[in-house]
Amino acid sequence: MRQVCISEVGPRDGLQSVSTIMPTDHKVRWIELEHAAGVREIEVGSFVSPKLLPQMADTAEVVKGVSHLNDLTVAVLIPNLRGCEAAIEAGADKISIPLSVSETHSIKNVRRDHAAMIEEIAACLRLVESVEASVRPQFEVGLSTAFGCTIEGQIDEAKVINLARIVLDLGVAEVGLSDTTGMGNPVQLERLVTGIWKTCGSDRLTGVHLHNTRGQGLANVLKAVELGITTIDSSLGGLGGCPFAPGASGNIVTEDLVFLLESMGYDTGIDIDRLISVRKEVAELLSNEEWFGFLSDAGLPLGWAPK
Amino acid sequence: MRQVCISEVGPRDGLQSVSTIMPTDHKVRWIELEHAAGVREIEVGSFVSPKLLPQMADTAEVVKGVSHLNDLTVAVLIPNLRGCEAAIEAGADKISIPLSVSETHSIKNVRRDHAAMIEEIAACLRLVESVEASVRPQFEVGLSTAFGCTIEGQIDEAKVINLARIVLDLGVAEVGLSDTTGMGNPVQLERLVTGIWKTCGSDRLTGVHLHNTRGQGLANVLKAVELGITTIDSSLGGLGGCPFAPGASGNIVTEDLVFLLESMGYDTGIDIDRLISVRKEVAELLSNEEWFGFLSDAGLPLGWAPK
Repeated sequence: MRQVCISEVGPRDGLQSVSTIMPTDHKVRWIELEHAAGVREIEVGSFVSPKLLPQMADTAEVVKGVSHLNDLTVAVLIPNLRGCEAAIEAGADKISIPLSVSETHSIKNVRRDHAAMIEEIAACLRLVESVEASVRPQFEVGLSTAFGCTIEGQIDEAKVINLARIVLDLGVAEVGLSDTTGMGNPVQLERLVTGIWKTCGSDRLTGVHLHNTRGQGLANVLKAVELGITTIDSSLGGLGGCPFAPGASGNIVTEDLVFLLESMGYDTGIDIDRLISVRKEVAELLSNEEWFGFLSDAGLPLGWAPK
Repeated sequence: MRQVCISEVGPRDGLQSVSTIMPTDHKVRWIELEHAAGVREIEVGSFVSPKLLPQMADTAEVVKGVSHLNDLTVAVLIPNLRGCEAAIEAGADKISIPLSVSETHSIKNVRRDHAAMIEEIAACLRLVESVEASVRPQFEVGLSTAFGCTIEGQIDEAKVINLARIVLDLGVAEVGLSDTTGMGNPVQLERLVTGIWKTCGSDRLTGVHLHNTRGQGLANVLKAVELGITTIDSSLGGLGGCPFAPGASGNIVTEDLVFLLESMGYDTGIDIDRLISVRKEVAELLSNEEWFGFLSDAGLPLGWAPK
């Protein structure tokens, strides 16, 4: 039975997209509940300017507040070296920095072109490598807008593969592929994954961050796990509305994803019944936000058990 | 480029599940609009007792009302021989009769056990074969609850394959597989499809009717088309709520499905922009009903074109 790691990104990608500012103790409670349901990697926040994203201002406290949870990879997002310093200081287990394949998007989003971002990534890498090996966090670059950009449109696949190579050549352990805009399809995903694997080695890309903006999330997941991708990002209740359209979900729904994988015989380590309860409890803490997904309404099928 | 036929079931599976009784001229308008967008097979109604399903009482008029549309396969559902007579009389191009693999469900739903249903199917087949060859409709058996049943729970796959064999041995040209309850997963779908193909021949099963009750619809579709299935049922706007849970969609959303397939390089013959317009127009005709799907909110990606 093949294991797939579900990386829950709700406390970061979900909360940064909604207007509610969740109190720190509620974030910690959410993370504790998912951990108790069997989730073993959670992106708990982002070290960005609190002026830009006040929802993420307490990320250091959240990281510390969940450090007691056994076997949990506490992941954070950073936009730059300053965020990297804060993430290391807080004691995060895994640090991801996005590199937007669309240079227009990168300049607009973080005011850095590719050359400047690659320099920033190199500086972060040096900082991470200066940490004593026994407590050194994992460091990964997420190739965002890899499947398309709302400003540039279609993205040349050779460009994605080339940027992956450049970043991995710096010494970064892994890149991830992000369908930031929900424009991806399974055929494109296969070309991107196998393209990076051929150029850089299959151990250098093991995770994908897919969106469900156009309802294609789980079809893309199916292709990813069949290819051999072992980490899939998703968000409890699909929290994190799509920026284009109210009512259109951005993130893949963790509950529906776990149901897909466990039904097919993959082992996620997650207890779905408990996960559905967690959804209910967290939804009460975020009662102003829209919740997505189908499994929690329909329930598990009669007689269903993980395969 | 491989062609996939989208069989629109909204006017039947959608309308029979909602409370609105759509006037005949609105049904005809809906079908005309989808035909103009490139849809070439539409299940326009069901020849069932108008006492049971008053929404379907005008099916004969609908069949006649759309008979002028070129290259459109006008499909209907029937529960029994009486429905078959009415379907032939009306001039339907394709007639489907469901056979529930769950015998408990069959008895509860149509008050017939498997033996009685198989007899009924044989009688329908003889009737269809008595029609002059030049105007003879296609006749197909849909194996419903093939992926699981809300009463019996899990369904033995050998039972599905065996019923397929029995029905095909009668002389029925084709069976279809229906995930009536939205319990299916891609691994199960592959086993069922290849199981029937091995036992009965791959030309005897070319279409699937999948539901999205637990959000797994398009993942199952991906597996189906990769295996070589060439007809996929779906419903405009996912019309047809799930019987278990308000807010949970039953049918696969035609718009999102066409986007998936065209993005991957399959040819559906459907113009997505026009299809999105059709959704808007039909949604106005059915303003009390819930509409599902993501593409219509998010829109086509910048620079997107069919592959």
